[in-house]
Amino acid sequence: MQAEPLITAVYESLLKAGACPVVQMMPDGLMERFFRLGHAHHFDRLTAYDRAAARTIDARIRILSQSNTRELAGIDPTRQTRHARAARPLMNALLKKPWVLTLFPTAAYAQDAGMSVRAFEDFVYATLWADEPDPVRAWQKLSREQDKLVSRLRGANRIHIVGPGTDLHLSVKGRRFINSDGHHNLPSGEVFTGPVEDSVEGVITYDFPVCTGGREIDGICLVFRGGRVVESSATKGEDYLRAMLRTDPGAIRLGELGIGTNRRIQQFTRNILFDEKMGGTIHLALGNSYPETGGRNRSAVHWDMIKDLRKGGALYVDGKVFQKDGRFR
Amino acid sequence: MQAEPLITAVYESLLKAGACPVVQMMPDGLMERFFRLGHAHHFDRLTAYDRAAARTIDARIRILSQSNTRELAGIDPTRQTRHARAARPLMNALLKKPWVLTLFPTAAYAQDAGMSVRAFEDFVYATLWADEPDPVRAWQKLSREQDKLVSRLRGANRIHIVGPGTDLHLSVKGRRFINSDGHHNLPSGEVFTGPVEDSVEGVITYDFPVCTGGREIDGICLVFRGGRVVESSATKGEDYLRAMLRTDPGAIRLGELGIGTNRRIQQFTRNILFDEKMGGTIHLALGNSYPETGGRNRSAVHWDMIKDLRKGGALYVDGKVFQKDGRFR
Repeated sequence: MQAEPLITAVYESLLKAGACPVVQMMPDGLMERFFRLGHAHHFDRLTAYDRAAARTIDARIRILSQSNTRELAGIDPTRQTRHARAARPLMNALLKKPWVLTLFPTAAYAQDAGMSVRAFEDFVYATLWADEPDPVRAWQKLSREQDKLVSRLRGANRIHIVGPGTDLHLSVKGRRFINSDGHHNLPSGEVFTGPVEDSVEGVITYDFPVCTGGREIDGICLVFRGGRVVESSATKGEDYLRAMLRTDPGAIRLGELGIGTNRRIQQFTRNILFDEKMGGTIHLALGNSYPETGGRNRSAVHWDMIKDLRKGGALYVDGKVFQKDGRFR
Repeated sequence: MQAEPLITAVYESLLKAGACPVVQMMPDGLMERFFRLGHAHHFDRLTAYDRAAARTIDARIRILSQSNTRELAGIDPTRQTRHARAARPLMNALLKKPWVLTLFPTAAYAQDAGMSVRAFEDFVYATLWADEPDPVRAWQKLSREQDKLVSRLRGANRIHIVGPGTDLHLSVKGRRFINSDGHHNLPSGEVFTGPVEDSVEGVITYDFPVCTGGREIDGICLVFRGGRVVESSATKGEDYLRAMLRTDPGAIRLGELGIGTNRRIQQFTRNILFDEKMGGTIHLALGNSYPETGGRNRSAVHWDMIKDLRKGGALYVDGKVFQKDGRFR
């Protein structure tokens, strides 16, 4: 487990603060065994232990630290979707408690990003403003900027997104935009909401590959009618895309519209934790919406995919340019 | 975590068998933080999570794999005894479910044993008869030999142990001797019982240092009257010995008399998992007794200490020589 130094440091801080931290870490490769060797009941049911653990913890800190992001490449994706479905009640319960998600810079993540480990470490710290004398101040500054975006978006109704291969309409009427300023995801830097479930119409072509569940899925194009995906294609990993869309009824509806604001993230890393925060991009996620936005879509899936507006793209709010060529107007 | 390859292999076997394994592993050094930085409630109370975890698991496999056996050397021992007291109900509940305890050969264990890692690995596998074509057959053979010892000890009353610095009487009347043949401890190779609690009289000088809780305690001499330790001394680590004896009322009574039978263990390794099984030795443990023996002593402590009978020692059962100079008669 490469994240051990970070786990130990977090453990120390929690202990000093009086918390009773429980460390849950798994050897690299254990999930691959789980999905390859497991029986039906492993994928379709939660254990009494799983439920008790979720019930008794007060908060959750997740630290991603994969040693191989393609570990699950050979797994039948329906096993992953069955497991996600079974775990959904537990995930929803955990999302109601305080949570944080971050990443420990490993060689595997650096490799996906096309960087040396050293360069990737520097990148990660930069995206957190951890290289500044006062990172908290930097986050507060970003938070104020995002507050202004949220103010501008208050009362918004119609969203129109255009760009190469993309012409998509959706409504955010009555929905709340959330200022994501480093209290859950680390790094953060986005404002997001949940689109009105049946309002999405048109076509979107995503610009970056999605790396998830051991796969890379690229060239994704989705056509929406009445909020539902009615056509889907991918130039790479189409089978996996189709399996994800079949997870449950909520998997073919959008659960999130997010607008990236983190100007420290300018290059694609094949890692959604960073990529979706990239300044100048937006993301439209299939599946579960965040209840705090007012979004009502429920799914075991939450699949972020990124649309780059920096090269000939634009986002209009109620007919006015909100972002064009990656810049807020 | 050096034991990851073993954890992964065990996980695979459990999964194939249909079990739902939960992996609990901790970064090296976390316990040191726990005891050094924890608050009173960390040592004196169990969490809802701890209780729920113990309640919901069906069986427990413990794999020791320390990277430094002296990690807790600087910890106030009263914190360790407070924590052991708080955890006692949980430990007792877990002992009622199937359990196994074993060890992954690390550099730290090899160092304590005065061996290279490679030599220590060979030693560990040898003590398990894992170097034989059919280890299960070897264990069955040992089990039959131990059955004979248990038969000879059935109905025994008075035990008399003599040797350098040692003249100890105790009763095992009405108590059961258990054949420990590799179903709990791995390696195993002992027969054991729980002495009658108030029967222990005399003096015992232990021959090997006890390595526990980050300390090495050597030259331990205990004097018993009416089953209770009335005098105690150690040439090294006496403070720690005294702290252990103050844990609770059960900590100053014997909870176990064990007779080692594993002839593959002939050298002292500073590791009780091996040392107490050494052929030609016996061990008398302070603290908690195993209920299956009929022993009634209850304590948060179970502290095995070894008496070597191979050089001028003997164990008499109802006046007859049972073992002398390390050999069964």
